[in-house]
Amino acid sequence: MEMENDINTFFEPEGIVLVGARRSPGFGYGIPFILRQRGWGQRLFLVNPNGGEIDGMPLYKSASEVPGPIDLGIVVVPAPSVPKVLSELGQLGVRHIIIETAGFAEAGEKGIALQAEVEKVRKKHDLRIIGPNCIGIVNNVNGFSTNEILPEAFPQGVTSIIAQSGVFGNILLDKLYALNLFICKAITLGNRMDIDECDMLDYLHRDPETRLIMLYLEGAADGRRLRETLARVSKDKPVLVLKSGRTDQGRAATASHTGSLSGVDSLYTGMLDQAGAIRAESLDELITLARIFATQPLPQGNRLGIVTGSGSMGALATDSAVVAGLETPQPSAETIEKVKAEAPEWMNVKNPLDVGPSGQFKIALSAMLQDPGIDMVMAITTIPHSVFRSILSKGITGEQIFGNIPAIRSQEPEKPFLICVVAHDEIYDHMIEIAGSHIPVVKSPEMAAKGMAALWRYRNIQTDNPK
Amino acid sequence: MEMENDINTFFEPEGIVLVGARRSPGFGYGIPFILRQRGWGQRLFLVNPNGGEIDGMPLYKSASEVPGPIDLGIVVVPAPSVPKVLSELGQLGVRHIIIETAGFAEAGEKGIALQAEVEKVRKKHDLRIIGPNCIGIVNNVNGFSTNEILPEAFPQGVTSIIAQSGVFGNILLDKLYALNLFICKAITLGNRMDIDECDMLDYLHRDPETRLIMLYLEGAADGRRLRETLARVSKDKPVLVLKSGRTDQGRAATASHTGSLSGVDSLYTGMLDQAGAIRAESLDELITLARIFATQPLPQGNRLGIVTGSGSMGALATDSAVVAGLETPQPSAETIEKVKAEAPEWMNVKNPLDVGPSGQFKIALSAMLQDPGIDMVMAITTIPHSVFRSILSKGITGEQIFGNIPAIRSQEPEKPFLICVVAHDEIYDHMIEIAGSHIPVVKSPEMAAKGMAALWRYRNIQTDNPK
Repeated sequence: MEMENDINTFFEPEGIVLVGARRSPGFGYGIPFILRQRGWGQRLFLVNPNGGEIDGMPLYKSASEVPGPIDLGIVVVPAPSVPKVLSELGQLGVRHIIIETAGFAEAGEKGIALQAEVEKVRKKHDLRIIGPNCIGIVNNVNGFSTNEILPEAFPQGVTSIIAQSGVFGNILLDKLYALNLFICKAITLGNRMDIDECDMLDYLHRDPETRLIMLYLEGAADGRRLRETLARVSKDKPVLVLKSGRTDQGRAATASHTGSLSGVDSLYTGMLDQAGAIRAESLDELITLARIFATQPLPQGNRLGIVTGSGSMGALATDSAVVAGLETPQPSAETIEKVKAEAPEWMNVKNPLDVGPSGQFKIALSAMLQDPGIDMVMAITTIPHSVFRSILSKGITGEQIFGNIPAIRSQEPEKPFLICVVAHDEIYDHMIEIAGSHIPVVKSPEMAAKGMAALWRYRNIQTDNPK
Repeated sequence: MEMENDINTFFEPEGIVLVGARRSPGFGYGIPFILRQRGWGQRLFLVNPNGGEIDGMPLYKSASEVPGPIDLGIVVVPAPSVPKVLSELGQLGVRHIIIETAGFAEAGEKGIALQAEVEKVRKKHDLRIIGPNCIGIVNNVNGFSTNEILPEAFPQGVTSIIAQSGVFGNILLDKLYALNLFICKAITLGNRMDIDECDMLDYLHRDPETRLIMLYLEGAADGRRLRETLARVSKDKPVLVLKSGRTDQGRAATASHTGSLSGVDSLYTGMLDQAGAIRAESLDELITLARIFATQPLPQGNRLGIVTGSGSMGALATDSAVVAGLETPQPSAETIEKVKAEAPEWMNVKNPLDVGPSGQFKIALSAMLQDPGIDMVMAITTIPHSVFRSILSKGITGEQIFGNIPAIRSQEPEKPFLICVVAHDEIYDHMIEIAGSHIPVVKSPEMAAKGMAALWRYRNIQTDNPK
């Protein structure tokens, strides 16, 4: 229980001191502004040895002069000053510190020595530290953020992020926000001199608001502990993992980035798999998986139905689905009958179901989704751009072309469902509007099929490891 | 030579008869309109047994009534009428036919029998046939098109497409056009009862306007001939291949789509590799490869330099590059010195070169590109959306942030170069404008790295197989 509260303070501090508050633009300058804007101004105290103020916010000359209670320190002073600042905070009883400053273990010998010095201070005062070389955390439930760069609007969601790298964290925030995938908590760990991915996995495991965890890892701080932690967390919440450092050269790159030793990749592959984590092979795949896991239920079986306007796309999706462990059985006699009743003679009613230019997309989709022998459905739309524009110009709506997608989907809410748009971006954007925020709309049929297979694999992980 | 002229007629006909011209919307209705719009109205004759006219264009009751010379027939009549129409055309001496109608070998037993009947007529009159079940060809050099659905603007480029599936062909046209990748010729083959991918590879091999060939294949008509043809063509022009039917289920899907037997996939993998073709693993990869091959020179070596604003993206790109056969050597002493002269102390000058928020992106990019130990360069930009908007709102331009990319690139025009934007789409769109049409701008660092490696592999294919 004490351990738990130890981490909670980072997300729900009583009072915060920002040591190294800048009076002019540069790294960390935006922190007081973003905290004030997000409702944390009253609990925030700024320290700068020169005193003065920033936009009406007073600057105290040292942490000891701060007039209110503080339990969290954010440190953005230059690296050589960090040990001294930590001593001061430790003496004041501030045990939780986020060191955002870079120039430690990731920056060569001098930095490694400096980080060792910080570690001595940490031990002496029994501090808990996130960082150094990070941008700390975002709690999108209560608004708290030590990250000065957030998307312009930032609604609360169910997906939480753990990233070693601060920039990576911010890339994900931007990309996910643009896809209407909203964030619950986001943590960047930097050099992990104390708090690591396992501490944060455990925290998010307990966190009632988090339903899905995305983890970007350059190397495990402790491989065995990571395996145990992932196995424990994965029983309850899916953990999507993107790991760099598959090659010696990639590992060398991470060493000078967050001071990580990535370890041999083949060990990770087996370990992540055994622990029930879901590994993505690329950033795009990580994001596609997140969109699917954040919105779709787990399937009851591995039988995928595909409805498409293009036989080629149906074949490409089928290949990827089968390679990833799904089946694509033929539709039931009843489904075939339902579709044939409305279909032109040339239409081959099977799975994948290629409706071509028949206009039977919505009927086929609805029939496939309701087929009791099908556990999940993927629709692939492929209308040419010039045709789409000409149809819209005649006042025909996207809903008339594709059907009322949310209504079709709601007939079988327990079956995973997604739409893949292989067409001009204008059609993709249009489909995102039609589909609403609970149906993933993706661009790659191969990745969509892999994502459906990952849902099934995760379902098995949960079944094999009952709580 | 006779064989060559045999194919040329499809792309440069003297006179065309469209048999089955429709008087109301439906499949094929747009063909007379698109041909007239593209300057082919004078050479086009429309046949419909009911006579009359379409928008001022007369309808002849049969092909024998047509007043001008014809050497190409486009057939869109219902499937059962196709054998009779072909006999008529054969008797009139029209030897080149594109059958767009579906409902043949792809559509079950009745269709298979009908296609056999067509084959008899073909043999009797020594016809050359594209199709059935296709949308024929587009020649973007002289404007000729039997495809009624083209992107709204359609400038001529150096990339030609061969696709079995008509819908797939149109998807590619739309997607490539949206990425400023312009088309030279596009061919859809359908059921390939006569003309197949090898005939078209040979035609595009000879075609002086085509520099790059994209091939979507469901199954080879003749595996050995395909290998020999690909080997011959690949010596001179890169051939990018996407093949479906990797699994039994995927093969079954193609059988009912273009009547193909896809064959066992493992044989294709070895065959395509030996023949020097470049295989893409997904539609997205095919398109990324096309953008790189259409615009970039071949590298002199396999040494990739990476300049990035994110250490994580640098590590992910490095992993993919090394797995695909590239090296990422350290920069020369001179390059290191050049970059360090302007860089803040924390910057680790190595490869991948992470410039972080230093503002040194353009200096680092220029230095890396000019390093004699580096054969190709990939830049990865990662600016947060809110920062980007705030910078633009201050009147600072993208060029000031990223540098004059075309000017930097022109310092070393012989080295492959690309930009990867891992950020909000607004930044991607902005970068496409800044970079101009000769520098590929892509979204996935992993796929970008694979694409650079494919350039190097193709360079070796050319070196190993001197002309």
